[in-house]
Amino acid sequence: MNIKELVREMGVQARKAAVRLARATTEEKNKSLEAVASALEKNIKLIQAENEKDLRQGEQDGLSGALLDRLRLDDKRIESMIDGVRDVVRLEDPVGKIYDERVRPNGLRIYRMRTPIGVIGIIYESRPNVTVDASALTLKSGNAVILRGGSEAINSNLVLARLMSGAIESAGLPAASVQLVPTTDREAVGAMLKLDDLIDLIIPRGGEALIRRVVENSTIPVIKHYNGICHVYVDREADLAMAGKIAFNAKVQRPGVCNAAETLLVDRAVAGKFLPEILPRLRKAGVRLVGCERTRAIDPAVGEATEQDWKTEYLDLVLSVRVVDGLEEAVEHIERYGSRHTDAIVTGNEEKAREFVKRVDSSSVMVNASTRFSDGAQYGLGAEIGISTDKLHARGPMGLEELTTYKWVVLGNGQLRE
Amino acid sequence: MNIKELVREMGVQARKAAVRLARATTEEKNKSLEAVASALEKNIKLIQAENEKDLRQGEQDGLSGALLDRLRLDDKRIESMIDGVRDVVRLEDPVGKIYDERVRPNGLRIYRMRTPIGVIGIIYESRPNVTVDASALTLKSGNAVILRGGSEAINSNLVLARLMSGAIESAGLPAASVQLVPTTDREAVGAMLKLDDLIDLIIPRGGEALIRRVVENSTIPVIKHYNGICHVYVDREADLAMAGKIAFNAKVQRPGVCNAAETLLVDRAVAGKFLPEILPRLRKAGVRLVGCERTRAIDPAVGEATEQDWKTEYLDLVLSVRVVDGLEEAVEHIERYGSRHTDAIVTGNEEKAREFVKRVDSSSVMVNASTRFSDGAQYGLGAEIGISTDKLHARGPMGLEELTTYKWVVLGNGQLRE
Repeated sequence: MNIKELVREMGVQARKAAVRLARATTEEKNKSLEAVASALEKNIKLIQAENEKDLRQGEQDGLSGALLDRLRLDDKRIESMIDGVRDVVRLEDPVGKIYDERVRPNGLRIYRMRTPIGVIGIIYESRPNVTVDASALTLKSGNAVILRGGSEAINSNLVLARLMSGAIESAGLPAASVQLVPTTDREAVGAMLKLDDLIDLIIPRGGEALIRRVVENSTIPVIKHYNGICHVYVDREADLAMAGKIAFNAKVQRPGVCNAAETLLVDRAVAGKFLPEILPRLRKAGVRLVGCERTRAIDPAVGEATEQDWKTEYLDLVLSVRVVDGLEEAVEHIERYGSRHTDAIVTGNEEKAREFVKRVDSSSVMVNASTRFSDGAQYGLGAEIGISTDKLHARGPMGLEELTTYKWVVLGNGQLRE
Repeated sequence: MNIKELVREMGVQARKAAVRLARATTEEKNKSLEAVASALEKNIKLIQAENEKDLRQGEQDGLSGALLDRLRLDDKRIESMIDGVRDVVRLEDPVGKIYDERVRPNGLRIYRMRTPIGVIGIIYESRPNVTVDASALTLKSGNAVILRGGSEAINSNLVLARLMSGAIESAGLPAASVQLVPTTDREAVGAMLKLDDLIDLIIPRGGEALIRRVVENSTIPVIKHYNGICHVYVDREADLAMAGKIAFNAKVQRPGVCNAAETLLVDRAVAGKFLPEILPRLRKAGVRLVGCERTRAIDPAVGEATEQDWKTEYLDLVLSVRVVDGLEEAVEHIERYGSRHTDAIVTGNEEKAREFVKRVDSSSVMVNASTRFSDGAQYGLGAEIGISTDKLHARGPMGLEELTTYKWVVLGNGQLRE
């Protein structure tokens, strides 16, 4: 069998599994998840032996220390993966939920019912824990999953997928509920992205280059975010102490993630007071600062921001700072340079907060809170499969409900159309 | 300006209009819609003069009588278009609606807010009334629209778009809220489908060939349905009188539309009683019948159904009939041959109804009602922009709400991430 045929056969098996999963009860799905957790628990040594192969190969291939660290499945990481699966057991099952019910004048009772999406393809890079996290979420939401992980984690991913698949089958649901593409050949990704008759949705997780490649080649709908160019706007009516803490938290607490702030926008009316207070604190925390002319007039040690800076997701301790004339200019800046991920205003004026929320077209808009809260767990979704900056079908953090769609159900007693 | 540049410039203007429309109040949007209705009303003569050009051209080009009829804007059709716009005024505005609210342990108040999708491209065939219907719905839901109608209706469409655009501008919203591609050059469609940085969604309306062309060439999300292969399954516990009426209505009442039935599935336990009753009635109504061997054993006048028949959307007075062993086989038939549009069961057994609803993976699933009800107006959506058999983001009839997406709004008082 060539790679194209192999991937298609996986799609066929996934589709069959999806039909069964769509009518699985919550109890059946939870039993499978418990079986997965137990199987991982009982096989920690085996998992680590396979992981060791990847680590050794990675060292030979000269992977960076950071990459090797992401790859490593130490005891703590495996424990946390297993806890994650048990957390998903406790989450409410969205499938079958009825909403938006109405009774029509002719007596038809019509409502929407949540249903699984079907078969979901997940394409991701190095972290092997995604293999388990994503499988738990897709299973609980009644979807079959085809996983394609990074080549550097192939042995770890294969053993994890094999253990999960076996556990699910032993608990009475199809083994093909979770499948991992068993080859690192790039051709497999291309083949997967064209299976639009078998896969309903592709979720790529990784760097911008990976995601662009997926979008350009997929005939299947893709939900994604390219990057997070998040802004904090400090309004003239902000509590400046609060604004300082939020800006600091949004930039410094974990600079390498998509919901960290990249640009600070400051209302000119308070720039002279606010910037001399916050910029030294940021600098002391190791943040490199670049800014507009008005910023540099206040703090000449700030570097010059180029047009490119406003469009850059640093993912690092770097912040671009711009003084704006007020809310209008802040909103325009975000519209022009933002990535529609997460943007925050700090203000004591409710009217302005409402205006900002209304006008900023991002997947999450925050008032007086750190952009770092843009996260499924923080929103109470329980877990997240990813964050979407797309308009369709889900925006922002995606949990179980975002892994479902709906059908219309129409109940009658013989109604005919006239 | 070449065609590519022209279309891109339309995209840029639409994007600007969308930013303004996103914050338009319901009153502003309704005022614009009223202005549109008045402008059409005052210019019926002008519209008909332009429509006359299309009709004459169509006659010269040898269009069929049916096509010419679809193209014709007689008084009644124009009136109905204008009434349609006023109906949209009365529909509830989904934009700004808040739902799914929660307060987190740290005090963050988090909810979802309905927002417009942004810029929507609509690609359609001959009927010029789509130009007006689609514009009213996109405007009310706060979206800018780029219309690309069939070449045979170009003069009608141009005058309608020009009148609407002028009316909207005079009422204070951007003229570019509604734009029509002013050329019949095919290159314009290709250019439109690649504007993924400016257009958020493409909705094609027309025959399967048109839709396939759009899907294959678009880098923008497309919501669509290829066709409607709708089934009526008559269970052994059905009220057979009701079943006969529903089957008849689903096939005969308007056979040329997507929610008409193409296949009748009959439980073998009642086939001997039901088929001799319904088949002659269908035949008398002009329906050509093809069926499986068991059907033909009961009624030898039924033609032989080929494998291709089960996959065919006749859009005509033709029905394929199959006797099945029961619910299980009916569900499998629908899974294999259906197009996930609309499928109905007729049964007096609630348990079986529930099972059918759960297992049939179609955008609308009906119990004891005609498939012909699958329609936005019938569901109480007020109007519909189309029907989706996609999984993402909307399924079934799409009204105003389905032309929106949401953003997450997070309200805090200085919360930081730890």
